[in-house]
Parts: sequence; structure tokens; C-alpha cells
Amino acid sequence: MSTTENSQQRPLEGLRVLDLTRALAGPYATLLLAGLGAEVIKLEDPVGGDLARDNSPYVGRDGVVVERRHADDISISHLTRARGKHGISLNLKHPEAKTVFADLVKGCDIVVENFTSGTADRLGVGYDAAKAANPRVIYCSLSGFGANGSEGGKAMDVIIQALSGAMYTSGAPGEPPVRMGVPMADMLAPVFAVIGILAALEQRHRTGVGQHIDVSMLGALTSFVAIENWSAMAAAGMPSRTGLTVQRLSPFGVFECADGYIALVAVHDKLAAGLFRAMGQVELLQHPQFATRDARVANATELEARINGWSRQLPVVDVVAALEAQGVPVAPVRHPEDALVDPRVMARNETMPIAHPSYSSDIDLRTAGIPILFSGARTGFDPVLPVAIGEHNSDVYARLTGYSAEQLESLKRQGVI
Amino acid sequence: MSTTENSQQRPLEGLRVLDLTRALAGPYATLLLAGLGAEVIKLEDPVGGDLARDNSPYVGRDGVVVERRHADDISISHLTRARGKHGISLNLKHPEAKTVFADLVKGCDIVVENFTSGTADRLGVGYDAAKAANPRVIYCSLSGFGANGSEGGKAMDVIIQALSGAMYTSGAPGEPPVRMGVPMADMLAPVFAVIGILAALEQRHRTGVGQHIDVSMLGALTSFVAIENWSAMAAAGMPSRTGLTVQRLSPFGVFECADGYIALVAVHDKLAAGLFRAMGQVELLQHPQFATRDARVANATELEARINGWSRQLPVVDVVAALEAQGVPVAPVRHPEDALVDPRVMARNETMPIAHPSYSSDIDLRTAGIPILFSGARTGFDPVLPVAIGEHNSDVYARLTGYSAEQLESLKRQGVI
Repeated sequence: MSTTENSQQRPLEGLRVLDLTRALAGPYATLLLAGLGAEVIKLEDPVGGDLARDNSPYVGRDGVVVERRHADDISISHLTRARGKHGISLNLKHPEAKTVFADLVKGCDIVVENFTSGTADRLGVGYDAAKAANPRVIYCSLSGFGANGSEGGKAMDVIIQALSGAMYTSGAPGEPPVRMGVPMADMLAPVFAVIGILAALEQRHRTGVGQHIDVSMLGALTSFVAIENWSAMAAAGMPSRTGLTVQRLSPFGVFECADGYIALVAVHDKLAAGLFRAMGQVELLQHPQFATRDARVANATELEARINGWSRQLPVVDVVAALEAQGVPVAPVRHPEDALVDPRVMARNETMPIAHPSYSSDIDLRTAGIPILFSGARTGFDPVLPVAIGEHNSDVYARLTGYSAEQLESLKRQGVI
Repeated sequence: MSTTENSQQRPLEGLRVLDLTRALAGPYATLLLAGLGAEVIKLEDPVGGDLARDNSPYVGRDGVVVERRHADDISISHLTRARGKHGISLNLKHPEAKTVFADLVKGCDIVVENFTSGTADRLGVGYDAAKAANPRVIYCSLSGFGANGSEGGKAMDVIIQALSGAMYTSGAPGEPPVRMGVPMADMLAPVFAVIGILAALEQRHRTGVGQHIDVSMLGALTSFVAIENWSAMAAAGMPSRTGLTVQRLSPFGVFECADGYIALVAVHDKLAAGLFRAMGQVELLQHPQFATRDARVANATELEARINGWSRQLPVVDVVAALEAQGVPVAPVRHPEDALVDPRVMARNETMPIAHPSYSSDIDLRTAGIPILFSGARTGFDPVLPVAIGEHNSDVYARLTGYSAEQLESLKRQGVI
């Protein structure tokens, strides 16, 4: 596990999270809390555990592999999402589990779950049960459509992307929608969940009591889509999807080079002049089709063709250099593997390496960090990982519930933990 | 302004934010704080104010228009992003501004700025100045590449999208990258900024002092991209971009209908059987190319062609109904205008209406709400908007700084406010 060198405290130190989540959305919420310094206790079913343990690819003694070969191969998903979390097991379907859950909640500030809506209550581990055990607890539910809503279909990322309108904001008119490669629905809901949890903590300082936080994947992503006023744009005759460029701001967008693509923005006269100089076509500055901002917008298709006609002849690095020399905002369109190792991003721990606890890897297993820097605190993950299900049962149960070794042994024999 | 009917307190009530931000990223951060109950004081330059005031389209006495026609037309961007905020003016370039800024900061818990990196310090309104005035203040800087980094080019959303790798996670191999229509870089950094601010508030309860929070647009979006382990996937021979479908999970992704598109997920045997029944092609269950999960993945292109061959004949509504009847996860790919009025989303205030303070509109001006529900608190925006620059100068300056009417008049004459 990587942590920063900084020896300062982390912002959420002293807070404890009981983490009932699985897959991606929930575990990412508790990952953020762990990286901010909360103690996160990941609770898994004794049989099978988190589904993400079976996500390909794996890493282990043979390096990175598509199919699990050895018992100690670990899914890279698990290695990423369970970092810095302590692992315990509890079979929530067992009749004894409710009591154990209540005993755990007494020692926790926060509970997070992302079961299908209604499941936590049915299992007896919903907010009401948690509150009865600990009125100060902040209990966060992540679901597809809201904690009290009837499920309108399975809440997988691609389903939520489709419903949210996000797929139709990308791509060109007349072209198919675009499935975003980053699982935005899965990732965005947990970020709002963390905001809800921290806001409720602030309120708890005033009131002394906790509450239930309810975040939906559909709502989180749709609220992002809604920052543009689509109905007003349609009423004003402005197209809602425009592909790689935005012609009403022309020249603006993504252009082709000999070996890749670049993004550029040259909306204003001064920037357009810089672009034309970079292109070696200063005569365009006087050209009636391109001399003014209005003219460039009116002749955007022709202008874009001329830019592409120039940039296609050159490698990305030359186009970027030529535009930078003229002060025109420009960037290469980078592949994720290149983006993740940007020195600025690595220096700030916005991406960070992970490693199998026992085996090194030739591949740079780089993943998401905490993209927030604090002047008076550090972020980062404790060097702990639930490699096996229930890895930290003895320690955690003893600390939180006071159960004796005999009691734990008995719970294990009964299949409770 | 719309608020919820709930009369409970909001989670961040009692906290005050001095908001120096402009454009989108910063104002969205303070919008979230306002919707969670903080008092937000939007500070604008007396001349011109926030750039977003000049964003087309506008709304006013003629309804929604592309170009401003009347003095009281308001940009819908401003109406959206300045909701629930009090407006004051201050010319930060005036020599007297530093004193006024310090007097304001004394009465605030939080300061947020998104100037180009280094500008706030140069103006004398950076963290050091704020801390000298109020050691408890939490000061958040939003920038393209980090508060202490040299600017690596202009940090516009499309530039950050290009650098982050996000553009290359969407689209099909061999096809161009995809510019996301939702300004993800502009929107994601402020969400992490709010997490940073709230985490620092929690720490302040322990330590009594504030700190500087530093969030970069590049880091926030790159950390999202980094949740997938791109290098490991490449090493395992798994393609990084796969277009509308994901063949290693086939059938999974977006398919074409006669009048639009749907997303479906039928990874497992049971779901695949449901799909084949919905298609009226139960014989595929026995077909050697499609009978098992491995076979379906191996023959994904052929399978996708068959699904599209069926779905293209039917309207979206029929394909969705047929798949739902078989329990197969499916959703229509909706346009943003349809997505924003989903009854579930409207009921939860995840999208909410806005209106010009004086004129009604035939167009549903629906925008982002706060996608978090609290059982013990409400969210929503106070019915306040800085229509004019410095709209709330008298009230806010009197409350926060105690300046007399004469002092304010003098500051105005000198061009300070």
C-alpha cells in the first residue's frame, strides 16, 4: 500500500465506518472515507464475499493473469477497492446476525450499504436497526433509484447511463449514443454519498444524532446532466449534441493528427490568430470567412476542415508545440495509460500504485488516489487489506464488540461469521 | 426558487461561505454548499461580474432567447449557478480590497476560489491572507493542475478531458476519441472540493483551526479514469475501449431499435435465456454458438448482429417491454430532456425547476438539484439571487463587516465595491 510521506493526521481520523457494500459504487464511497482517514471495516459474507473478488484480471505469483491460477491470486478490482480496509465476515442471512450487527454498530459512526433497495431492512440491518443500536449513527444507502423507490430495473452502470441522458450528450447528431468507458454512474453516486455522510457529521455536531442518507445512481448522474439546460437550448435552437467539436464556439474541440488527436480552443480573435499563425496560414486572418468570430462560427465546417487538413499532416507532438508557441490552449488526447502517469498527477497522489501484499509485478498497477490535497492533513491508505474473507475477525470483533475468542469460535461453528 | 416542503433544518446551516469563484467549476462547488444549507456570499467584480452572466441562452420577458434583448434578461447559466447565493461586489485589483477581503473573511467559515493558479495570492486574497484574518477559515482552491503547479496550459473542460484519458475510454477501437457532452472535468473537481471542505470542517472540530484545500480538475477526472486498471487490462490482453458493447460480457451494451436505442445486460445464462425468449428465438438456447456464456463471448459479434437484427425491427418501447417481461435488465437510451423529467428524479429534487425572478417561462427551465436525501434534514436553495452585481452589498457588508452606509458609499465612489 502506498501512503504519503506526510506524517500529519488525516482529516477523518477517529471515525469508524461499518462497510456492508459490494461491487463498485459502495466500495468506492468507503474507499474515499478510508483514504481520508476513517477506519473502515469491510463486512463480507463468509461464503464468496464481495463479488469484485472474482473480477478479472488478477495479480499474483505469475504476474497479471486473466484467469485465477493460484489460491493467493488477488483480483485487481479487490486490491484497488479494498485497500486500507479491515475485513470481517458476517452471514447477514443467519438469525444470529442481527445481534452481531447491532453490537458492531454500537462502535461505529457510519454505516454504508448498497444492497438492492429494501434488502437491508429485510435482513434486519437497515437504518431502523442501526439507529436502535446507536442513535448517533449516520447510515448511508446507495441504490439505483432511491432507497424507498420500487426498483425500476437492475441498476447497473450501463442501464443508469442510458436512463440519465448522459449517453446522448456525447456523439454527433444522427449518430448512435455513446457508452462512456468510465463507469460514471457507479463512480458519481458514491462521491455524493460521501458528501451526504460528511454533511450529516457536521449536523451531528449540532444535534448529537445521526440520520439516514439516501443517494441514487440515477439521481446523481442525472443531476450532472442537468447542469446544462437542455430544454432551453432546444428552445433557443442550439443543438444538444455536436460530436467532437462545438461549432457555436468554433474553432473548439478535437482535431485529427497523423498519429492521434488533439483538443484545442481558439474561440476569441487573439486565439484564432495564434492558430492561423501556427498553421502557417496567416492569410486566414483577412479571409472574409474566418476574419471575425461570427464569420468563424458561420463557416465552422469549412474552418474545421482546414484545421484538420493541416493537423493531419503532422504528429501530435508537433501540433501541440506549434499551438503552445502561439499561446493557444491545446492538449494531446491521451490514452488512459499515459494519463495515469502524468508527473503532476502522480506527485499529488491523484493516482497511486497498488501491489499484491506478497508478490511484485512488472506491470505498474496504478489506480485512483484521493484527488484532494490538504495543507494541514495527509491522505492515504493504511497498509491493510482483507486478503481472505474475515481476515481481521479476531482483532475487529474483539475491539468493537468485546466478544471472547470462545464466542467467536462458536459464531464461526454456527456459520454466523 | 424551488425548495423542498420539508421544514427541517439543512445540514450545513450556520456555516458561511465567501465565494470568489467564476464560470462553472467553482460556482458548482458553492452551489452544492448553498443547497446543503450554508450561507453563500458570491463576490463579483463590480465591472462585468461572473463571466457566466454572458452565457447564452437567456430568459426574460420574451422567454428563452439566444441573444440578450432586455436589461433584465438573465443568462440561464447565471440563474442556475447563482441560485440561493447572496451577491456582493469587490474589485480585487483595488488597493483597498485586501482590507475589505480580510474583514469579510473574519465572518466566514469557508472561502472558495477558482482563479488561475497563483492569482489569488498575487491579489492578496490567497490562503495566507485569509488565514491571517481568520485562522479557523477553510480555504479551497480549484485549479486546472493544482494550486502550486505551474499552469500546463489553460484548464478548460475539453483540455482536461483530453489529458485525463477519459476521451479514449469511450468509442470503439480505431475510431476517434469521444468528447463527453457533460462537462465532466468542470463538474467533478467541485464535488471533490466539497468533500475536502467538509472533511476539513470535521478536522476543525478536533483542532480548532482551518486549512487550505487544493483540488485540481486534471487530478479529479484522472482519478476517476484510474479506477480501471488500464495497464493490467492491457497486459492481460483486454481491450481498453470497446464502443457500444463489451464483448467479454456479451451480450452487454447498447443496441439499435427502429426509433432509438436501448441498453441491455444479459451476461448470465438465465438472462441470456430471457433475451432469447424475448426475441422469439428460443432455439438459440441450444445453438452451439450461443448456448453457454463462453460460447456467447466467443461469438459476440454474431450474437450482437442477431440482437440488432431483432431490435431494429421494433420501437424502443416494445423492445423494453419484451425484455422486462423476461426479467432482463434493459433501459431506453433517453435524451437529456426526457431524463430530467423522470418522475423518480423530480420527486427526489435531483433535478428541479428554476425561474426568472420576474417572468414565467413556457419552457421548463429544469436544472441540477442536490442528489442527496437526508432523513433528518432538508436540502434546497433560499429564494435569493444576485440579479445585479452587488445586489446584496448593503445587507451583507453591514452584517459581516459592520461598515456603515457612509463607508459603503465611500467604497463605492472609490471603485472598491
